[in-house]
Amino acid sequence: MILLTRKADFSAAHFYWNPAWSEEENQRVFGKCANRQGHGHNYTLEVTVEGAVDPVSGFVVDLKLLKEIMEREVVSVYDHRHLNHEVPEFIATETSATIPTTENIAIAIWRRLAGKIPGAKLHRVRVYETPDLFADFYGEGV
Amino acid sequence: MILLTRKADFSAAHFYWNPAWSEEENQRVFGKCANRQGHGHNYTLEVTVEGAVDPVSGFVVDLKLLKEIMEREVVSVYDHRHLNHEVPEFIATETSATIPTTENIAIAIWRRLAGKIPGAKLHRVRVYETPDLFADFYGEGV
Amino acid sequence: MILLTRKADFSAAHFYWNPAWSEEENQRVFGKCANRQGHGHNYTLEVTVEGAVDPVSGFVVDLKLLKEIMEREVVSVYDHRHLNHEVPEFIATETSATIPTTENIAIAIWRRLAGKIPGAKLHRVRVYETPDLFADFYGEGV
Amino acid sequence: MILLTRKADFSAAHFYWNPAWSEEENQRVFGKCANRQGHGHNYTLEVTVEGAVDPVSGFVVDLKLLKEIMEREVVSVYDHRHLNHEVPEFIATETSATIPTTENIAIAIWRRLAGKIPGAKLHRVRVYETPDLFADFYGEGV
Amino acid sequence: MILLTRKADFSAAHFYWNPAWSEEENQRVFGKCANRQGHGHNYTLEVTVEGAVDPVSGFVVDLKLLKEIMEREVVSVYDHRHLNHEVPEFIATETSATIPTTENIAIAIWRRLAGKIPGAKLHRVRVYETPDLFADFYGEGV
Amino acid sequence: MILLTRKADFSAAHFYWNPAWSEEENQRVFGKCANRQGHGHNYTLEVTVEGAVDPVSGFVVDLKLLKEIMEREVVSVYDHRHLNHEVPEFIATETSATIPTTENIAIAIWRRLAGKIPGAKLHRVRVYETPDLFADFYGEGV
Repeated sequence: MILLTRKADFSAAHFYWNPAWSEEENQRVFGKCANRQGHGHNYTLEVTVEGAVDPVSGFVVDLKLLKEIMEREVVSVYDHRHLNHEVPEFIATETSATIPTTENIAIAIWRRLAGKIPGAKLHRVRVYETPDLFADFYGEGV
Repeated sequence: MILLTRKADFSAAHFYWNPAWSEEENQRVFGKCANRQGHGHNYTLEVTVEGAVDPVSGFVVDLKLLKEIMEREVVSVYDHRHLNHEVPEFIATETSATIPTTENIAIAIWRRLAGKIPGAKLHRVRVYETPDLFADFYGEGV
Repeated sequence: MILLTRKADFSAAHFYWNPAWSEEENQRVFGKCANRQGHGHNYTLEVTVEGAVDPVSGFVVDLKLLKEIMEREVVSVYDHRHLNHEVPEFIATETSATIPTTENIAIAIWRRLAGKIPGAKLHRVRVYETPDLFADFYGEGV
Repeated sequence: MILLTRKADFSAAHFYWNPAWSEEENQRVFGKCANRQGHGHNYTLEVTVEGAVDPVSGFVVDLKLLKEIMEREVVSVYDHRHLNHEVPEFIATETSATIPTTENIAIAIWRRLAGKIPGAKLHRVRVYETPDLFADFYGEGV
Repeated sequence: MILLTRKADFSAAHFYWNPAWSEEENQRVFGKCANRQGHGHNYTLEVTVEGAVDPVSGFVVDLKLLKEIMEREVVSVYDHRHLNHEVPEFIATETSATIPTTENIAIAIWRRLAGKIPGAKLHRVRVYETPDLFADFYGEGV
Repeated sequence: MILLTRKADFSAAHFYWNPAWSEEENQRVFGKCANRQGHGHNYTLEVTVEGAVDPVSGFVVDLKLLKEIMEREVVSVYDHRHLNHEVPEFIATETSATIPTTENIAIAIWRRLAGKIPGAKLHRVRVYETPDLFADFYGEGV
């Protein structure tokens, strides 16, 4: 068994806001991130797959295919988008929201990719919001 | 004479839209960037100052002061903001706009900093929109 | 369960010297690092916490709080300090020392942080001495 | 127990070609990488060892020794070489080949290093082919 | 006037060999780089253009167009190629060669790009062979 | 004419202290940097040389030679040293000091390298104290 990791980037806007809370409570918990005009990041996504190396091709996974899957399932949906307004899993109702924190983005990307990579197992999704902050999700409980 | 450069980061949302153009023209020129929900970036700002080294302190410029000026004049205004909606120089009128491209952000930051750094001359403002794209402005024509 | 990692930097001086050894033995084992005038590094600290994502806030841990804890417990104690002379866990007695190697710094930081992060479990402390050398500690045996 | 990781770089040429396949099949599976003139990369190798911290030296492993072993066993063999033509484990026969994919390079480096590091256990070999693609091998099945 | 810089990457193989010299002379001058099996690098190209900011679009140059030109004129020709065998400007005759040093690659890329970027002036071509070595060419004498 | 830049690293300790000032004045001007136990950094040095490309070798400068000169003149003197105590140009007298600021280090390195690189002209010395702070010196007034 071996692990292979491929990176991709996307640029998106977001804000943190819980519709069940008052303005004050949102400000207290989320600080500058509660600004509903939104701000944004250059996110970096790392997708790690696990599998046996094919003795003939030397690959765990077809790299072109992995790139296409990441592009189709994640990058084309998130890149140059406002996560709170345009990406279904983060659009709030009047009373609740899945807030697009780094943690929730990693979980959402796991859900978008799991089971879609032929011949290899999704092992980890890492999302960097900035070079200094990142979340790792291994699919536990999904 | 010597040059000293200090970096700072800010995260902001933006979009590209010329109010004097049709939807189609904006899409044709700006592509994905024309999405008016906005998207965002982790911008990196490099401010370069020029001056003689003070023979006593060994400094061209007081580094704590330079950091405070960059924070006060730029970072506190741009960070966690939507440039098109919240930063005065990029708020469009009904018929015209200074579009927050990397080039225009560099020029705007130059205007915010020029003449504000005691004892040293502003030499260059560099703005990275992503690690792969940046603009350099030396104050020409301002 | 998800993992969240936050980075911080500190600049410090150190040297490697075992007071129970001769000058020659210290030179043989530690080479250039045995120079007792000290040298220094820009250390990068990565703190990883583990927990469930709060369904309301979308956080494993309050990021502002995590930053404050890292600042208070580690950065304010180590930054711009000489580890051998000013940081208690690395001050040698006449006959023994906990030498501030990358490994021992990671363990010391674990001890400073463990049990201090409300609502999440400390998972890993990573310390980079240079971009090419780092230690990972998971709390085993502490 | 603690983990220590050291990086090293090497520059090498390679191509992907399975001698048991037709030209068309190689092109279909390997795309641009099938160009038998070869192309190349700046590879980055991360070697992670695991062990107890020596209470006297503060080391898991002697860093100078680890550097020498990595240099002797890997870098001096791979650096400025054409992997398919000059590195024994990747030289093809008429009918078969271990193709120098990132995965196979990580496995080959594991085999070159395992059992050669006194006092510590080889934990992981990570190989970056580019900053955006890397393989991790933990020795499973070797 | 403002400068805009865009990066691109390509991976290529090369070696250093002057056909007018003996084997010994090539070894003496070029060391490991004289290995005619070739080795390779992940090159990074930075193209800087200079011009006035268009007051309507906010651009010095159309970024999509600049990317296409860099792709068509340079990346598609150099990427996944052996520079000495497949890129015309570096193919040696029996008695002379333009050796694909970082300097000569920068000059060759300048020649490929000069005069091809509508509305802006090519200002600088920077080529990184590794993160620690790069050449800058401003078109002098071409 | 073309420019070639090579990087090197060194790790050193330093502090900022003007012997002609009181303790209070040093604290006021230099803040945390005035701690005379010292702290340290991983410095990165970039040396840029300027010259014509040799039509036979394709080099502006012999890279092995440039590396040796940088090693001999700078790295071997500064690396793993305490700049204030061990590097002659920064050792204070009772009443004055050349303080090892980033600016003064760049100037000192220029003086160490100028005139020592056969066949090329020293163009710029850049010194990074951290990834976020650097000085550039072009030899003016030396």
